[in-house]
Amino acid sequence: MNGLPILSSREISSYECRHGQGYTKVSVTQNDIEGSITYFVPLHDNCELWMVRLKNKDKNRRKLSLFTYVEWCLGNYAFDLIERNFANLFNEISFEDNIFFATKRYWNLPVPRRRARDKLFSLNTNLAWDKFAFLTASFKVDGFDGLKEKFVGMYNSWLNPKGVVEGKCTNSLGDGEDIVGVLQHDFELEPEEEKKFVIILGVVFEKKDASGITQKFDTWEKAEIEFERLKRYWNHYIQSLIVETPDKDFDLQVNVWNKYQAWVIARWSRMDSYYIGGGSILGFRDTCQDIMGILPTNLRWAKERTILVIEHQFQDGSCLHNWDPRTNLSTKTGHSDDPLWLIITIINYLKESGNWSFLNELVKFYDAPPATVYSHMIKALDYALSMRSSELAGFGISLMGAADWNDGLDQVGKEGIGESIMTTEFLCWMLLEVAEVCRRNGDKEMMERYLSEYKRMKEKLNFLCWDGRWYIRATNDKGEILGSEKNEEGKIYINAQTWAVMSKVAEKERAIQCLDSVKEHLDTEYGPLMFAPAYKEPDPDIGIITRFSPGTKENAAIFNHTVCWAIVAECMIGRGDRAYEYFKKTSFIERGKEPDIYKVEPYVYAEFVYGPDSIDFGQGSFTWTTGTAAWMWRVCVDWILGVRPELDGLKIDPCIPSGWRKYRVRRQFRGSEYDIFVTNPHGICKGVQKIVVDGQDIKGNLLPVFTDGKVHKVEVVMG
Amino acid sequence: MNGLPILSSREISSYECRHGQGYTKVSVTQNDIEGSITYFVPLHDNCELWMVRLKNKDKNRRKLSLFTYVEWCLGNYAFDLIERNFANLFNEISFEDNIFFATKRYWNLPVPRRRARDKLFSLNTNLAWDKFAFLTASFKVDGFDGLKEKFVGMYNSWLNPKGVVEGKCTNSLGDGEDIVGVLQHDFELEPEEEKKFVIILGVVFEKKDASGITQKFDTWEKAEIEFERLKRYWNHYIQSLIVETPDKDFDLQVNVWNKYQAWVIARWSRMDSYYIGGGSILGFRDTCQDIMGILPTNLRWAKERTILVIEHQFQDGSCLHNWDPRTNLSTKTGHSDDPLWLIITIINYLKESGNWSFLNELVKFYDAPPATVYSHMIKALDYALSMRSSELAGFGISLMGAADWNDGLDQVGKEGIGESIMTTEFLCWMLLEVAEVCRRNGDKEMMERYLSEYKRMKEKLNFLCWDGRWYIRATNDKGEILGSEKNEEGKIYINAQTWAVMSKVAEKERAIQCLDSVKEHLDTEYGPLMFAPAYKEPDPDIGIITRFSPGTKENAAIFNHTVCWAIVAECMIGRGDRAYEYFKKTSFIERGKEPDIYKVEPYVYAEFVYGPDSIDFGQGSFTWTTGTAAWMWRVCVDWILGVRPELDGLKIDPCIPSGWRKYRVRRQFRGSEYDIFVTNPHGICKGVQKIVVDGQDIKGNLLPVFTDGKVHKVEVVMG
Repeated sequence: MNGLPILSSREISSYECRHGQGYTKVSVTQNDIEGSITYFVPLHDNCELWMVRLKNKDKNRRKLSLFTYVEWCLGNYAFDLIERNFANLFNEISFEDNIFFATKRYWNLPVPRRRARDKLFSLNTNLAWDKFAFLTASFKVDGFDGLKEKFVGMYNSWLNPKGVVEGKCTNSLGDGEDIVGVLQHDFELEPEEEKKFVIILGVVFEKKDASGITQKFDTWEKAEIEFERLKRYWNHYIQSLIVETPDKDFDLQVNVWNKYQAWVIARWSRMDSYYIGGGSILGFRDTCQDIMGILPTNLRWAKERTILVIEHQFQDGSCLHNWDPRTNLSTKTGHSDDPLWLIITIINYLKESGNWSFLNELVKFYDAPPATVYSHMIKALDYALSMRSSELAGFGISLMGAADWNDGLDQVGKEGIGESIMTTEFLCWMLLEVAEVCRRNGDKEMMERYLSEYKRMKEKLNFLCWDGRWYIRATNDKGEILGSEKNEEGKIYINAQTWAVMSKVAEKERAIQCLDSVKEHLDTEYGPLMFAPAYKEPDPDIGIITRFSPGTKENAAIFNHTVCWAIVAECMIGRGDRAYEYFKKTSFIERGKEPDIYKVEPYVYAEFVYGPDSIDFGQGSFTWTTGTAAWMWRVCVDWILGVRPELDGLKIDPCIPSGWRKYRVRRQFRGSEYDIFVTNPHGICKGVQKIVVDGQDIKGNLLPVFTDGKVHKVEVVMG
Repeated sequence: MNGLPILSSREISSYECRHGQGYTKVSVTQNDIEGSITYFVPLHDNCELWMVRLKNKDKNRRKLSLFTYVEWCLGNYAFDLIERNFANLFNEISFEDNIFFATKRYWNLPVPRRRARDKLFSLNTNLAWDKFAFLTASFKVDGFDGLKEKFVGMYNSWLNPKGVVEGKCTNSLGDGEDIVGVLQHDFELEPEEEKKFVIILGVVFEKKDASGITQKFDTWEKAEIEFERLKRYWNHYIQSLIVETPDKDFDLQVNVWNKYQAWVIARWSRMDSYYIGGGSILGFRDTCQDIMGILPTNLRWAKERTILVIEHQFQDGSCLHNWDPRTNLSTKTGHSDDPLWLIITIINYLKESGNWSFLNELVKFYDAPPATVYSHMIKALDYALSMRSSELAGFGISLMGAADWNDGLDQVGKEGIGESIMTTEFLCWMLLEVAEVCRRNGDKEMMERYLSEYKRMKEKLNFLCWDGRWYIRATNDKGEILGSEKNEEGKIYINAQTWAVMSKVAEKERAIQCLDSVKEHLDTEYGPLMFAPAYKEPDPDIGIITRFSPGTKENAAIFNHTVCWAIVAECMIGRGDRAYEYFKKTSFIERGKEPDIYKVEPYVYAEFVYGPDSIDFGQGSFTWTTGTAAWMWRVCVDWILGVRPELDGLKIDPCIPSGWRKYRVRRQFRGSEYDIFVTNPHGICKGVQKIVVDGQDIKGNLLPVFTDGKVHKVEVVMG
């Protein structure tokens, strides 16, 4: 042992190694051995590298042993968890030419079955896992262990594995066992001597491919070259949109960490985090929103993803709720918001790219041959319009369906009666957006129809769904109202207010009134709650939202995704100080300054922060996988800094804290770069007095579109 | 802390506490504190008691703290495992009047859905768990912890929980968290002083019921009375069938432990062990076989269970493969053996009870109104007869279907072509048994039809399925043969031989030949393998049996269930020494003498023992849940000792090791008790020369049936 810790334990994804998710460096100093481990995933190979550096700070020569430790999760993690002993029976390991291999002779993967009498989605249990995981190193392996019991010991644990205590692996191999991956290397260090090793953990389809990957990274120098390449990749990516403001924390978040999280989430774009038990399933709505996070930085990738989601629409205009990219099997739930996300995704792409011909590109339906993107969009909108409640028995607005953006409202509309104000507001927003596209496309009749629908919906919302000081959130199948002053719990929901403003349903005083109600009833020291008060007891007529313990998840926590929309709405009505207050209260950098309260990673957004009804008020939870990643990054740039793509070009529309006197944004847009300098001589939040582009005054606040690949200097004076 | 270990960690079943599964006593001596903990489940209450006794062997007065520790698993263990963080959000705990409560606001339970478009079996996710788990004690609780993080600590573990290290609980409560159940009690012990505590872990539907249970067991004296009651229960149960032979290990196994395992397995009777991920699902075939283990000891319970399985037959004669007793939802797979297990179960009940009128009792079908048990049986047999292969394209024998008894052969007959020799043999056996019932019932025509079918099947098996030195095991959909000399792997399967003998398909030389082939090709130092050689690589035309690593589970391990049948078959041909050899090689008591090889509990059967193709050759695996429990117990009594119920009465037909000179069996049967003394003056294995009942010679070896409730002395002389 000689005082060295076991290096790490990681899990191989059953689907693929996650390319390029940055890197982690851990420093280790113990018993006069100083060292560090750098973990990273190369850009183009399905493996992870651990670069281990160890230096002897002792006065004597030291004999050391290094042990790797991996617990393998091969194929299907749920199966491995639930049926652990059974799952072990299929494990197969070997050690060949300094490489340790692990695979599984059994896999259960959802596949369509051939026979009509079989259920559509059953598990194919007549498969072996299609990959080999492997573990190897730059050093000659002096010993190894494949069997957990042999290395850890029957009565020991990670804290004192037998192999490390005794300083010797047993070279154990054997199939059908609980397996690990341990490589041992014995070496000596003179005083001040340093040694460097690379450990490679990977996954391949064929065993023979492992040696190819190994040869690419089997020296410190090769690994270092790859590491430098990875750093260059990230530096380049981070340079793609840079802001400089008086708030250095804001800059750090926007320039590096939030942008990075947006990239990672777009890469995952799926409901595959452990907490919902998903296995590499792409969420429809999630993918749509995640695309927003890469549009300004990687337009080609964003377009690919946009086409991917379009391909998961049905020809009647409805959309899937999620699908498995390995098998294209899917779930259609009837969430009322799904088709509307498709529309905003297409429009977001148009705004970023200016590529109007995209509307004429042909993309297939999930159940039918290709049609133009334009017709996909129209079908989605018409489908959403068709899913409205009765004008007589109901409000004649959007039905809730299986739920809306808020999955937790899963029992509100299960009988097909309950209505969603949020979906109706989303529908209004999309009616406006599509009407504008129709106008430009020359579809005047369509445009007028959508504008007239917009007007009707807007009136209904303002006449029927206004509760006096805010908008209600939903009606359930029994006709009961959610989100009203009359409710004892769930009196006011944030989304019904913010989306009312975003969709221009709430205007002027009413917009101010409903957002002031948010501030008054929902805001806390860590940002506004999703609604309040929390549901104290489960209500089977509302749904799982009431089953979460009060103050957790959707049950009156601070749900960061919704905070993004509160900031947009405040920016739309020009209240930059309040928008910034919401931003700061929820910012992970800000929250990370109180680690004993916040507790989670201070460099990515959490899905939610426990609300005051929980004993953990202020603690973050479910980091990484959240729509906040893409939204908040865009909200900071598009709405606070106000550099926002529109169909005609880049709009300059800041809504900043009044204390800021100047800031700068460098952004690429449609083939050229804008270097934007904004000054705020009068300390206001919103308003543009003057814009100078390349030395020339322009009219209005829309920057001209250049396609010359050059840098264009933009000077903005607020006023 | 003061040197006391944390007591224990247990799991509350989501379905019910497991009543009366004996008890466990653990001795604890540490730092001069001597103590013990006795765990048991009372006979009639949904709780578990921990009786803790601690004595100070130190010369000084000691201040001690006792901590309980429970990690709660509430509702659905798979959900808790796979979606751990999410599942925690629904946890709800409280501490009221010295009782700690835990429940969950969310449950997912399979239920039928109302709407036609929904899948038949979906999860109802609009439920709270319907129970409260609770933890309390006979002592006044001086401190408690409900939150794992507070008690264990963020960076500690079970090995050094913060609460124990610091000697103080934090009285933590909070919903939506990772929860535990910790009760702390502080006390002092003078030298030689002893203190006794009772800890109660239970589950109730209403919180208020917890205090009722608590009051029943909240002193050492009350718990002790219950404990004595439990011991009386088991002593009574164990007395119900007693053997005395020259082999004390055999006696211990038959009289106590195997009988006990048979009881427990009949109580569970389900596929709910962790390794197959079942959640309280009753297996059809499993339940049928488990009933065998309680027939001689609890006829009323056995009858209830028999009716239960009959209720899960369809009116076309087919049967379910499993069902959930909470919801009666089920799976019908088309395993070819299921209906045949129904028949043997009915006949076993007739043989034990002599209650011929049972055949006229009305029992409902799963999909139709009641019919007589007799017609259930006939329908099962006719259904099995209908599921045969083509006489032209195949052998005209039983189709494999989804699989037969050997679930691992799951791809052999998936196209509806592959055939099962084992199922055909099972069919033959049942044709003989039912024909005899028909004869007695006066259904002469039916009897003759079944006997003629038997003759045809027997001929086919002997002409078409005899491989030269043994019977083949199956044909697959491609017409390939499994279990032939011509196969490189899976040359010979044990079941095809043992069931050939059991069904009287193999007679005389052929019976000896096929069982000798078993001995020659399959026997190992730990008993005969299920087949050999192992499949080295997965074969998608055979199934999951080939995916298990070689030497594990059904892939050429010693599968104890099949060893039972080898013993029956050897007994049928009179080879008592070989039968006993198989028994001894696999007996858990015998195997427990080499704990470093066997590794598992030496008091219940394991499902399988790793075969020679595994590095763990000789190790037991998957203890408790195995059909071996019931079968082996019955095989020992019915076939080795030869005290066997038949339709006309109790038959005496020993097949013992030749070295035994005498033995005794006390068995209740049809309302009286037989005290049977067998002598073997000539050292033979099989054969009865003379039987004296109550001092009177009888003819033949069938004991007269008494219904007088008295003890009848039976003297048997072998010869």
